[in-house]
Amino acid sequence: MDVRKRILTEATHLFFQYGIKNTTMDDIADKLGISKRTIYETFKDKNELLISCFEEYSNERYKANEVIIKDSQNPLTAICLFIQDGASMLNLLSPAFFSDLKKYHYELWIQASRQQTERNYNPAYRLLRKGINEGIFRKDINIDIVVKLILEQMKILIDSDVFPPDKYKQSDIFKNIVINFIRGIAANRGIKLTISKIN
Amino acid sequence: MDVRKRILTEATHLFFQYGIKNTTMDDIADKLGISKRTIYETFKDKNELLISCFEEYSNERYKANEVIIKDSQNPLTAICLFIQDGASMLNLLSPAFFSDLKKYHYELWIQASRQQTERNYNPAYRLLRKGINEGIFRKDINIDIVVKLILEQMKILIDSDVFPPDKYKQSDIFKNIVINFIRGIAANRGIKLTISKIN
Repeated sequence: MDVRKRILTEATHLFFQYGIKNTTMDDIADKLGISKRTIYETFKDKNELLISCFEEYSNERYKANEVIIKDSQNPLTAICLFIQDGASMLNLLSPAFFSDLKKYHYELWIQASRQQTERNYNPAYRLLRKGINEGIFRKDINIDIVVKLILEQMKILIDSDVFPPDKYKQSDIFKNIVINFIRGIAANRGIKLTISKIN
Repeated sequence: MDVRKRILTEATHLFFQYGIKNTTMDDIADKLGISKRTIYETFKDKNELLISCFEEYSNERYKANEVIIKDSQNPLTAICLFIQDGASMLNLLSPAFFSDLKKYHYELWIQASRQQTERNYNPAYRLLRKGINEGIFRKDINIDIVVKLILEQMKILIDSDVFPPDKYKQSDIFKNIVINFIRGIAANRGIKLTISKIN
């Protein structure tokens, strides 16, 4: 693995695990057994490193999600895999991560959440349309509106003003969003499938 | 009706129907057949008038909602009445209303939406708890999280950046939010009731 990639992997891991504020450039250098100077040769400052971590992570998630969608038997299986994936990711995440992001890197927070929303729109749209065609989701939902609503709820999930991280476990919020969402749009056949898959 | 109350009623009506920017103090005075000076004797400026309209309207809605909750047979009937109420209110509303509010009276927009959220938390919480006790909603939902999510979605509904008013009808968004929300949290008995009541 080249140095850039190694730095990104380790920095992402530390940011996720200890929050952004608590992770210093020294911590990252120490963990990798390299000098801080090497990091600064690749990334101007912590903010630039953080932005690159986001890009890298977001690209990887996007590719992984595409594989899930392609390989899943049906849209509900795909969504259940996303739930498992998302919940276990959120369980690993320090509660400080998103609150640090909003507090100390507000522009990146706005930009990253907007980008995620735009990026996830098309895959989510296709998934719902497929589910409707297969009789799993209701024909009378407005796919465009419903996709926007679920993506906006993903922003609420990580909004520390709505759900302060010292009071709420993100995986609990996530579960309540996604299970209610699927049951909400499910046709009757879909509800039976959901119950057997999720509960 | 005293002058203050007459001004508030007419101004609210005009703001709702034509948007905030398009409604001038002259329009309000003309409609009431009073002088503009009389309005300015009661309200310092348009912004103060707008704030008072909000307070008045919000108090009235709150009282009306309390009556609905008290008089309804069960929580689902109450929610269905809210849906009818909300949808018909939104149908009367100019698409310009909320976009003007966000664009030209940003502080009031933030404050009013925060206040609505706080105010509606307790009634919504009680309604859901009652629904769970009656076997209409699922026992395994986290009431606190679910109430916060629906109230945040009410903010998204009126956010012109997410749903530009020239592209979306607010009553369509509202319907998709509320029907999917109820079906999402409904127990199986609740789903049957929902289908017969809403569809």
